[in-house]
Amino acid sequence: MADSPNCDLKSLSPLQLFERVTEQGEKVRALKAGKAPKDEIDAAVRTLLSLKLSYKTTTGQDYQAGLPPKDLVLINNGTAKEEDEDLVDPWNVQTSNAKGVDYDKLIVRFGSSKIDTDLINRIERAIGQKPHHFLRRGIFFSHRDMDQVLDAYENKKPFYLYTGRGPSSQAMHVGHLIPFMFTKWLQEVFDVPLVIQLTDDEKYLWKDMTIEKAYEYARENAKDIIACGFDINKTFIFSDLDYLGTSAGFYKNIVKVQKHVTFNQVKGIFGFTDSDCIGKISFPAIQAAPSFSSSFPQIFNGKENIQCLIPCAIDQDPYFRMTRDVAPRIGHPKPALLHSVFFPALQGAQTKMSASDPNSSIFLTDTPKQIKTKINKHAFSGGRDTIEEHRKYGGNCDVDVSFMYLTFFLEDDDRLEQLKQAYTSGELLTGELKKVLIETMQPLVAAHQERRKQVTDEIVKQFMTPRKLAFEF
Amino acid sequence: MADSPNCDLKSLSPLQLFERVTEQGEKVRALKAGKAPKDEIDAAVRTLLSLKLSYKTTTGQDYQAGLPPKDLVLINNGTAKEEDEDLVDPWNVQTSNAKGVDYDKLIVRFGSSKIDTDLINRIERAIGQKPHHFLRRGIFFSHRDMDQVLDAYENKKPFYLYTGRGPSSQAMHVGHLIPFMFTKWLQEVFDVPLVIQLTDDEKYLWKDMTIEKAYEYARENAKDIIACGFDINKTFIFSDLDYLGTSAGFYKNIVKVQKHVTFNQVKGIFGFTDSDCIGKISFPAIQAAPSFSSSFPQIFNGKENIQCLIPCAIDQDPYFRMTRDVAPRIGHPKPALLHSVFFPALQGAQTKMSASDPNSSIFLTDTPKQIKTKINKHAFSGGRDTIEEHRKYGGNCDVDVSFMYLTFFLEDDDRLEQLKQAYTSGELLTGELKKVLIETMQPLVAAHQERRKQVTDEIVKQFMTPRKLAFEF
Repeated sequence: MADSPNCDLKSLSPLQLFERVTEQGEKVRALKAGKAPKDEIDAAVRTLLSLKLSYKTTTGQDYQAGLPPKDLVLINNGTAKEEDEDLVDPWNVQTSNAKGVDYDKLIVRFGSSKIDTDLINRIERAIGQKPHHFLRRGIFFSHRDMDQVLDAYENKKPFYLYTGRGPSSQAMHVGHLIPFMFTKWLQEVFDVPLVIQLTDDEKYLWKDMTIEKAYEYARENAKDIIACGFDINKTFIFSDLDYLGTSAGFYKNIVKVQKHVTFNQVKGIFGFTDSDCIGKISFPAIQAAPSFSSSFPQIFNGKENIQCLIPCAIDQDPYFRMTRDVAPRIGHPKPALLHSVFFPALQGAQTKMSASDPNSSIFLTDTPKQIKTKINKHAFSGGRDTIEEHRKYGGNCDVDVSFMYLTFFLEDDDRLEQLKQAYTSGELLTGELKKVLIETMQPLVAAHQERRKQVTDEIVKQFMTPRKLAFEF
Repeated sequence: MADSPNCDLKSLSPLQLFERVTEQGEKVRALKAGKAPKDEIDAAVRTLLSLKLSYKTTTGQDYQAGLPPKDLVLINNGTAKEEDEDLVDPWNVQTSNAKGVDYDKLIVRFGSSKIDTDLINRIERAIGQKPHHFLRRGIFFSHRDMDQVLDAYENKKPFYLYTGRGPSSQAMHVGHLIPFMFTKWLQEVFDVPLVIQLTDDEKYLWKDMTIEKAYEYARENAKDIIACGFDINKTFIFSDLDYLGTSAGFYKNIVKVQKHVTFNQVKGIFGFTDSDCIGKISFPAIQAAPSFSSSFPQIFNGKENIQCLIPCAIDQDPYFRMTRDVAPRIGHPKPALLHSVFFPALQGAQTKMSASDPNSSIFLTDTPKQIKTKINKHAFSGGRDTIEEHRKYGGNCDVDVSFMYLTFFLEDDDRLEQLKQAYTSGELLTGELKKVLIETMQPLVAAHQERRKQVTDEIVKQFMTPRKLAFEF
């Protein structure tokens, strides 16, 4: 493919073109490094120049190594965002559409791949059981290199999971559990090590918060994460503020990433400005480093090239696009990714849930009564204005937040389908749908609270102690 | 003083004005935080505004917190440098003057204080012995807050020493020993703990060098440093790549500094650009953090506010101007400093010695024969072209490198003065002066080599192990 670059260049997106140029550049470098015959190098260079020209024609920009096309990376810069385009970055999610962010468009813009039926079927064959409903229902909808992870798994090669959380407050809501619920399932079906990063340093840098507070939140959040049921023998949870000072490998990977990413690049990817503190500017390397197994010598016995798979919400993808760009340049495999949609606020799918607005979400500390009141009072309804109209025209599940929540938390596929049909036909009223949600969420939150109570400080300490896990490397 | 800001503002330098505005700003914040009476706050705000106006009138710039006047900080930006001004920053030293950098001008530009006879006498009284010849001869010529350190010492309050080295190669030259020789003397006369930072991460970021190589150089350089004779019970030597992963306190201080310094500031101070990697941009915080005792909880028993004194060459001052700006904002005392002049290259005082040009300096690995040849062949002479002219007009000690070297390494004041008079009068010829230097350097380097041979890997390991030193805190 890369040898006949001109046949299909016009059909490529800017990002695909960008990746073709990058690949070809790597190829030229490899040929030169391997002292290949001169005519072979010359041919590769000609291809590279031709690809660069196509890139410039298509994007109106000169190709710059490591700097993807501007319209793709300046996603958090209001001025560069196209009209009607959703705003998605690690700090903001905005859309004008009541159905929420247009995820198909996002896949194109981010240059990731859709999790399609073929991939879901392949996962089912690999693990020998039904895939998680988050996969079946498109809640995890996008990926990068999941095929490679499955190749590795099928060839009995090891991989590990990495996910994380920015502990911005003690209060976590049910939406925060999505990546952890899914990660727990992945850990169980694939039986692999898991590392969970708590970016307390990030929160200290971004918020008006002391280091001590950020660290306290990290430990409190760890309790909620542990309460999801992770296996203590297979899971390492770490706070950056803690772990950086106890790991020989972590800082080395951070500084390697920091050497290979310029301010121009993080400016393009994250929208940083000259007025941002140098801590923010260098932070992306700290979220990147756990993608490399050598950051955890105690788990991987010093092995450097264990493949990493990162389940996360799609807004974290900019960090890992950057990581994947750097990885081959510092001799590490690119991490693979599984991206989830955003969890909608009770008020509607236009924004991501916010931990700072108590009514925007169901919190893990809410009582059954609070859950009932919040859902009844705030959950945006896709129902009609009057019972008569509702019976006649039916409700709209695409914008109904109660129904959306049920797709996340009601595991029974048949029941969910029944509810959808009944609501769409008008047979089921909004109040009745809300009742189903209340009855789903109350025991779920109560059970979480019960499990959290059992998470002692001693258990947190064990999870957060750097140690060997139950795997041989 | 700060309450009557208008009486003497015209006599203040831009930097002094800048510091007055900063102090007044801090005062206003303190009054507000302490809920002082409204009229008191109002008066302080009026003073602040008046100071800001004076600042603008004097500098033609708006006051920006943390951003000292441009002509003072843009010292490494060629375009901002005045004609005939010396270029001095952590990576460059250039002057067109054969006598070397104009240090009096540098004191004014950097806003530091001259080490004058009063201060030298005060040191002599405090320690009860003759000050080191580096002080007596103006080799350490500038300081910040040395008075405060002496106040602390006289009041039996503890302080500690911090110095360092960027291990850019295995080869160290005699000029590299200057800060260490002086630091050793300070440690002995004041009997205080000493920490020595080896910035192997910096060298990895700046040079085309692997992490492993940088770390190897750090350990090799540690041997030369140890060979200066530091007390193993009072000295902790650390590599950043190592220590960051073993210290609970170090990273916390780094991230605190990183939160309080913007890209604009490091751009102004160090001349970084948008094309620089994010590792360089955030590195200044890593050189700043050892200025705070909480970076070494094992030495200071967790105490946060032990005063730090940094002996270093003047080119390192930009790091510590930044550190001193940040310190009060993160609740730490500002480090005090003692600045040395640069060690001249054999070819003349226009440039700092370079470890990459073997003929520019006497290396610690040179044989007696190499030393003799280098001095005879390369040491720039202040003598006359012919013996007749020399006898008639005399030599010029101000530009003669052999004489300069003797001011560093010949401890005998009377002998040095005799040599100066004899050379200036023409009685002593260049070849004879060079012979004195050869006879001084050969045993000095040989003795260093002898001591270095005794520095085993085990001794290096002990120096570099984080541990309690022989002091109670």
